Amino acid sequence: MKPIFIQEVHLNQEVTNILIENQHIAGIGSHLPMPADAIKIVGRQMAAFPTVANMHTHAAMTLLKGLGSDQTLQQWLNESIWPAEKNLDDEAVYWGTKLACLEMIKCGTTLFNDMYFRLPSSAKAVAEMGLRSVLGFNVFGDGDELTDESFLRLREEVEGEGPLVQLSIAPHSVYTVSEKGLRHCAEMSQKYGTLYHIHMCETETEVRECQQQYGCRPYSLLQRLGVLEMTEGRFVGAHSLFLDPEEIALMGSRHVTVVHNPASNLKLGSGSQFLYTELCKAGVNVTLGTDGSASSNNLDMIEAARLMSYLQKGVRQDPTVLPAAELLSVATANGFSALGIDAGKIEVGKLADLMLVDLDNIAFVPDNDTLSGLFYAAHADAVDTVICNGRILMQHHHVDGEEEIVAQARQHARKLRPLP
Amino acid sequence: MKPIFIQEVHLNQEVTNILIENQHIAGIGSHLPMPADAIKIVGRQMAAFPTVANMHTHAAMTLLKGLGSDQTLQQWLNESIWPAEKNLDDEAVYWGTKLACLEMIKCGTTLFNDMYFRLPSSAKAVAEMGLRSVLGFNVFGDGDELTDESFLRLREEVEGEGPLVQLSIAPHSVYTVSEKGLRHCAEMSQKYGTLYHIHMCETETEVRECQQQYGCRPYSLLQRLGVLEMTEGRFVGAHSLFLDPEEIALMGSRHVTVVHNPASNLKLGSGSQFLYTELCKAGVNVTLGTDGSASSNNLDMIEAARLMSYLQKGVRQDPTVLPAAELLSVATANGFSALGIDAGKIEVGKLADLMLVDLDNIAFVPDNDTLSGLFYAAHADAVDTVICNGRILMQHHHVDGEEEIVAQARQHARKLRPLP
Repeated sequence: MKPIFIQEVHLNQEVTNILIENQHIAGIGSHLPMPADAIKIVGRQMAAFPTVANMHTHAAMTLLKGLGSDQTLQQWLNESIWPAEKNLDDEAVYWGTKLACLEMIKCGTTLFNDMYFRLPSSAKAVAEMGLRSVLGFNVFGDGDELTDESFLRLREEVEGEGPLVQLSIAPHSVYTVSEKGLRHCAEMSQKYGTLYHIHMCETETEVRECQQQYGCRPYSLLQRLGVLEMTEGRFVGAHSLFLDPEEIALMGSRHVTVVHNPASNLKLGSGSQFLYTELCKAGVNVTLGTDGSASSNNLDMIEAARLMSYLQKGVRQDPTVLPAAELLSVATANGFSALGIDAGKIEVGKLADLMLVDLDNIAFVPDNDTLSGLFYAAHADAVDTVICNGRILMQHHHVDGEEEIVAQARQHARKLRPLP
Repeated sequence: MKPIFIQEVHLNQEVTNILIENQHIAGIGSHLPMPADAIKIVGRQMAAFPTVANMHTHAAMTLLKGLGSDQTLQQWLNESIWPAEKNLDDEAVYWGTKLACLEMIKCGTTLFNDMYFRLPSSAKAVAEMGLRSVLGFNVFGDGDELTDESFLRLREEVEGEGPLVQLSIAPHSVYTVSEKGLRHCAEMSQKYGTLYHIHMCETETEVRECQQQYGCRPYSLLQRLGVLEMTEGRFVGAHSLFLDPEEIALMGSRHVTVVHNPASNLKLGSGSQFLYTELCKAGVNVTLGTDGSASSNNLDMIEAARLMSYLQKGVRQDPTVLPAAELLSVATANGFSALGIDAGKIEVGKLADLMLVDLDNIAFVPDNDTLSGLFYAAHADAVDTVICNGRILMQHHHVDGEEEIVAQARQHARKLRPLP
């Protein structure tokens, strides 16, 4: 792969050059010479930022986007989502994932942590699109379907698609997986060194029912089952909205990563009070996600970041909470580090995952503060160029093959829609 | 002005044609013939919606966007905003307002209700940009500056710029205007039939201090002073975030219009619990705004609408609150009707204020629900065309003169920035 030389780009309020070689950031400096064989990107009127990590989504569900908006959870599942999902096949998952990848690239995402079905189809789509993904083997009940044989076969199929795709183990939740299943998944996650990705404490109902069934809250249940110990450093709890102080302390001590999905939590009526400050104090790694497009209807991480910051400030009635620089870490470095990927910062030696935003976009005019412009004013359309692992995935808003993806996704979505 | 014929456009889930003549929507129908002299707009892969009404902003402050993000209110005012505002002159207000109009047009706004200084400069900018505006004569203290003479002179200057610009009377708030000033403004508003535009109940501090000073809450104070009676049907209370049931009943009985500014309320740490359901029940007219770009950093009404809906659903833990169709009215018709402008709906006979959104924008793919796509997935970049009062203000994302506006705004903003 040819080196990439980004010339005269804004980085941390200075104008400099960035050299990318062998998938890594090889040099940063205003006097850096351009290698003769490099692909040159003109950075003038562009600012470089690390790309974002969407830490919880269900990519292929983008085909179901907009079905059953404004319905109660049960109505939405029974009348809109489940009937449509019955019609899902491999090809639909493949094109749905491609559409999701396209949308994610357009908002500067180069890593997503997914949970869905028909993983080989998703893996193929992700590999072709060129971004990084961790795809979760979804487990329900006792998890009998997760055996050494099935895991190894699936891992070969998924990770065989390319070096940027990984398989994780994803028990759905404490209300859909048994104690046996939760523990079995942890044992397998420990044995094979995978991420353990699970929905946690998303609704008050979930917590209440867990207390009724098991006599304790969800994180305490996982602690009792040995799950948090077996998955230490590899546990990702999506949502984690309803927590008590004891659980938070426990989560910190076990180096849990949580994923806040503010748009989904609001739109589905789950709640608005994510305990960001408390979780950080306890040492929990806080990251950000969009959830699937069927829940809250886009995969835009810039929007998710803004929503997270605004909610923290508004609900706590304190405008100084979660300032833009901290928000950048939540949306970027915290996500990459949770998955053991050495990206999320623009520094020499890091993997070359970065985006260029267009400072001529009206969101940044009149140039008073670029970082504030990105998180408090801009939308995805400000992202001009996206580079992942040293490869250009988008330049001047164009992703190769996007017209076909849109056409195919439309066709497959039409087949899924429940008849009126 | 030539008629405009929008051919084969999506409107309320059907494909139809829209004819615009003499500033009004003159016809809608799939068999409508195109007049020979009409300007034709190809509507295929576009959906028509009424344009939005930004009911509370400070347009020229867009020059200060991004200054002092994440600061406390006092720090933000003392260190960032007030030092910069000291340097404001007529030309800065003119170019700042132009930049704001440009941004507003780009997100489908054709009406904004403003409050700031140096109104003739703003009026000139608005008239040149072609959208509708009500500009508020800002009053502080006893309002001695507001006399018949000063009012009439300013009205002539402002409304002389063009038929779409109006002057209103805008006492700043109950904490910066005296009882005498509040009442004087109401008398003048009644005498000249203008809007009475005021910040109300924006923070808990404001309400508490009003109770300490006057022994009652802000809306009750205005009732006691006779303000609500004198301004009935013309009263616009921006924010109105902290209210008690008695005030809400009073507001309904006096046909008050309130403007919810969710992004500003969250970002400045004012609060998150706007009493939408309660206000509607009481008969209050609920509208939407962005506040100035210095408070929350863009003028995007699509974002404001989404934020409002998500907050209502999330804070109330009920996904069925404020569904998309209702949200459309809040963002469009409710605003226009508050200002006595017969627009905000695409119906024959209404003023021709409408926008076309691009259904090929990825937010709408795969076409499951257009209205949900607009409010729950799209950003301003989906807006392709904006028409105000029968005149095209933007087509294919381009507004005449936008390059100069951006250049001039940058230059003036540089002069305003406090030296580091």
